[in-house]
Amino acid sequence: LARKVTKRKNVISFTNAFHGMTGVSLGLTGNSYHRQNVQDNNVTRMPYDGYMENLDTIAYLRKFLQDKSSGVDDPAAIIVETIQGEGGVNVASAHWIRELSQLAKLHGALLIIDDVQAGCGRTGDFFSFEFSDISPDMVCLSKSISGYGLPFSLLLIAPSHDKWDPAEDNGTFRGNNLAFISGAAAIKYFWSDSSFSSSIRLKEKIIIRAAEQMRDMFPQVIKSVRGRGLFYGIEFWNPETAKEVSAKCFEKKLIVETCGSDDQVIKLFPALNIPDNLLNRGMSILNDAVQTQHNFTSN
Amino acid sequence: LARKVTKRKNVISFTNAFHGMTGVSLGLTGNSYHRQNVQDNNVTRMPYDGYMENLDTIAYLRKFLQDKSSGVDDPAAIIVETIQGEGGVNVASAHWIRELSQLAKLHGALLIIDDVQAGCGRTGDFFSFEFSDISPDMVCLSKSISGYGLPFSLLLIAPSHDKWDPAEDNGTFRGNNLAFISGAAAIKYFWSDSSFSSSIRLKEKIIIRAAEQMRDMFPQVIKSVRGRGLFYGIEFWNPETAKEVSAKCFEKKLIVETCGSDDQVIKLFPALNIPDNLLNRGMSILNDAVQTQHNFTSN
Amino acid sequence: LARKVTKRKNVISFTNAFHGMTGVSLGLTGNSYHRQNVQDNNVTRMPYDGYMENLDTIAYLRKFLQDKSSGVDDPAAIIVETIQGEGGVNVASAHWIRELSQLAKLHGALLIIDDVQAGCGRTGDFFSFEFSDISPDMVCLSKSISGYGLPFSLLLIAPSHDKWDPAEDNGTFRGNNLAFISGAAAIKYFWSDSSFSSSIRLKEKIIIRAAEQMRDMFPQVIKSVRGRGLFYGIEFWNPETAKEVSAKCFEKKLIVETCGSDDQVIKLFPALNIPDNLLNRGMSILNDAVQTQHNFTSN
Amino acid sequence: LARKVTKRKNVISFTNAFHGMTGVSLGLTGNSYHRQNVQDNNVTRMPYDGYMENLDTIAYLRKFLQDKSSGVDDPAAIIVETIQGEGGVNVASAHWIRELSQLAKLHGALLIIDDVQAGCGRTGDFFSFEFSDISPDMVCLSKSISGYGLPFSLLLIAPSHDKWDPAEDNGTFRGNNLAFISGAAAIKYFWSDSSFSSSIRLKEKIIIRAAEQMRDMFPQVIKSVRGRGLFYGIEFWNPETAKEVSAKCFEKKLIVETCGSDDQVIKLFPALNIPDNLLNRGMSILNDAVQTQHNFTSN
Repeated sequence: LARKVTKRKNVISFTNAFHGMTGVSLGLTGNSYHRQNVQDNNVTRMPYDGYMENLDTIAYLRKFLQDKSSGVDDPAAIIVETIQGEGGVNVASAHWIRELSQLAKLHGALLIIDDVQAGCGRTGDFFSFEFSDISPDMVCLSKSISGYGLPFSLLLIAPSHDKWDPAEDNGTFRGNNLAFISGAAAIKYFWSDSSFSSSIRLKEKIIIRAAEQMRDMFPQVIKSVRGRGLFYGIEFWNPETAKEVSAKCFEKKLIVETCGSDDQVIKLFPALNIPDNLLNRGMSILNDAVQTQHNFTSN
Repeated sequence: LARKVTKRKNVISFTNAFHGMTGVSLGLTGNSYHRQNVQDNNVTRMPYDGYMENLDTIAYLRKFLQDKSSGVDDPAAIIVETIQGEGGVNVASAHWIRELSQLAKLHGALLIIDDVQAGCGRTGDFFSFEFSDISPDMVCLSKSISGYGLPFSLLLIAPSHDKWDPAEDNGTFRGNNLAFISGAAAIKYFWSDSSFSSSIRLKEKIIIRAAEQMRDMFPQVIKSVRGRGLFYGIEFWNPETAKEVSAKCFEKKLIVETCGSDDQVIKLFPALNIPDNLLNRGMSILNDAVQTQHNFTSN
Repeated sequence: LARKVTKRKNVISFTNAFHGMTGVSLGLTGNSYHRQNVQDNNVTRMPYDGYMENLDTIAYLRKFLQDKSSGVDDPAAIIVETIQGEGGVNVASAHWIRELSQLAKLHGALLIIDDVQAGCGRTGDFFSFEFSDISPDMVCLSKSISGYGLPFSLLLIAPSHDKWDPAEDNGTFRGNNLAFISGAAAIKYFWSDSSFSSSIRLKEKIIIRAAEQMRDMFPQVIKSVRGRGLFYGIEFWNPETAKEVSAKCFEKKLIVETCGSDDQVIKLFPALNIPDNLLNRGMSILNDAVQTQHNFTSN
Repeated sequence: LARKVTKRKNVISFTNAFHGMTGVSLGLTGNSYHRQNVQDNNVTRMPYDGYMENLDTIAYLRKFLQDKSSGVDDPAAIIVETIQGEGGVNVASAHWIRELSQLAKLHGALLIIDDVQAGCGRTGDFFSFEFSDISPDMVCLSKSISGYGLPFSLLLIAPSHDKWDPAEDNGTFRGNNLAFISGAAAIKYFWSDSSFSSSIRLKEKIIIRAAEQMRDMFPQVIKSVRGRGLFYGIEFWNPETAKEVSAKCFEKKLIVETCGSDDQVIKLFPALNIPDNLLNRGMSILNDAVQTQHNFTSN
């Protein structure tokens, strides 16, 4: 039976997603500590790439969207991080992102890439999704977008979806002029040619080599190494180890945070223009801290 | 970090679930036609037993409940039909129900069995979950519970969970006295010994034999036969066939409804005390209707 | 600036309203004891006729509906009882109801009369709103509508608003056939001419006379007497007195309930076909109980 | 009957309130253009000081809070602007604010003063509520608080209510260090003694004199003049006039915005350190624009 058309309200978000700490977007966040009181009737939670062994997460989502009795309404949008930072540096494959994008198109849902952590060159390209060759409907940008540490966030909207009147979503600090200037300068300075991108990829090699070496040396301590660009995670078998390693590094003036649902992952997130020797030194401090933990555990 | 305890609000419901047409429970229903405007922020949808090939639906649910960053809060309750009637006569196994019950206990969630369609002897036992040997926290009963077609519904609550004051949930027709009397008489009459139960199981054999015979004769028309007690579904490859068969039967004075997300299943739901010859006659009318459709399709 | 049209979701309900104990309608109810956990984002609470001294409640509502910045959205509907039963036998005037009806029309809102307590002849006419000469968009009927105590409720919808498909809002007991028959018979029997209506008005006189006499005799005990038809309330200065009087009457086999936000009102709600001598006897028992309380208080 | 204690969720907000454009707080806003899609189940709307002639708005609120059947739950908080800026420069009296504060205390609700527009010296004192001698539980500050136009907002919380863990409500730009420095410097520079406060009050006299003179000269054009400190509104009988006057001023390089539910009010909101001659010149441009409109209307 044909039913009256109703406005779509449902947004699909993923396990271990993190979309910030403000009111409405908090409902999208997976982590129960951060999200604590907020549950949103417009959010349907779906499994992220690799969430469960032997689960084809795209097939799962497809099934729910196709089945009119699945209990999941046609979504207005699907919001996703290509790499889940707070969620534990979970890395979606280019294939998965592509299939997700196709699924969104097929079911008339907007695809929103939350590129707050993974964007602005973090993965080597300016946008984290470039490697998957998709064209999202909206992109969230923030953090280093001002090029100078100034408060500045952007929501890119595909022109065909932009229904806002000029100045409709206003606010006292909605246009931080200084950040407009510095942001434009930064894009011009860093992204006029591919040299910055290349340098990021070279630095990534330093991280990979050091991190994989650690993993191979301490397989009882380190469970896995994963990431893209200058955005890597080292997952420990034991969350306590991650905590101790982070503390040990801090003593040596290296800041590496833990993330993941049990804080079991150490996140490597250096400045994109970090000099190679400094990056090497950081990896060396990290290696020493892991070694110490390994020795401690072995005894 | 330890957080303040908050009252649980989340209820887990399943794909293709049907829990009635009234306000709050409508949010639990999977079917988008029935549920259309109602989406509930307190309902998390999980896959029912057998929802997707190669998916261990219990393992899936367990993963979401264990992972503090899955985005699914600790549930107040899990509500489930042991056989999904409107959903297409999907039959949960005793093993699945048992594991679900254990999961509910482990995570401090109430297990609510919606036995409106499958209860009151429909599966051979009075309660549809008896074969799985679980002890639910709440049971919903209705339909033939009055024994005489009178409006009457019950919510059984395990005494340890019953926090209601006497007459707290009142209403003009909340106690339909006539139905109390007839319901008590029916239970006494039908359920004092096991004879009624035995007769149901004998009649089930009539259905199985006839239905499986149809399936074997018309494998291009019938996809599967499934059910328990006097609650069977015949799934057709083509929803149109189901519709035609139902219409054909109606012409011959046999009422069989379609169900399932595409109305692709014909539901067999005879009176529990139907005489054998009448049941045989019904199955024969059904067989003829399927045959007609088969011939029609083959040409 | 012109904005996109959005579906109206807001329903206006009144202070001290009572619209039943089921899920969605519970949000409309004023009483916090009954409504406890339910708060509805689609309900705006407005003051009922006479809610506050010196407040023109219609002017107040009009102001909120006219002012685009009042914070109250255009309502989909306004739901109201012409006499608030559970709320304390608060009686709206014909003038107030008429103005409310006009306001609803002016702002494109449906007017829903909840006639569950006040309808079916309770006020002398079949519908409680007939004296105000309005034509509501929907009317809720229940209680004695079956004419025989059978579970039966109706929602009358003005044909122009009826968008339901046949059998769309179905349910196992949605059509209680026995009640259809008895209800039709009752309407034919009682409402074919005006004699029943006249007899109700005569019986009302018995109540008024007795109740006003009590009020005049015990002005320190009784605060006010109000009502229409066979639906009267006696408000006591002290809720304790109402409770004691009700208990005293019960000892003498007269059931009179308390109502109002502090249970400070005794509700008179006899059968519409109560014999005059029985009604007189009831009023006499009530009078004795009030007298006893008066003497008790005076000493 | 005693009921289980439940967490309070209800927040009382007022007609014509404006509390910003972000997700959750948007539900508090009165203006339907700004708030359009957002309705919040936790917001109860009450009439602001002076909202309706002959309405004692404090008595009205008190009645709703006292009456257990009013339909308004015990509020967690009451949020209010002492002067409603976007709402049309509606000025609450010191007496009203004091009574509101007492009512909040009596009913265990937090009093939140949204001092985003009226705070930071705008009314002559640093906080806009100082003249009423209350001590709110929370205060929202923003706009000029950084002293230098940098993005910076604060929520002051009475220490007894501060349950946050250190860094619990974090975010990339949650601590704008530059604004911390400039904000502290600004407070030291402007608020170490009472000279800034005194100069604001002197400038207020310039506005009052000029504005009241306009009102007296053009009573058919101007309906009222109201405000406190350097926060004044000139209400026109006709919203079109306000619009024309604003446009005319803009031609002469004076920016004055319109506000109020019909944009019928011109808001005067000069820099607090505006030189007297510049302020005089602005008022003179405004006067000319009103005169022009007056002449235009008279012909």
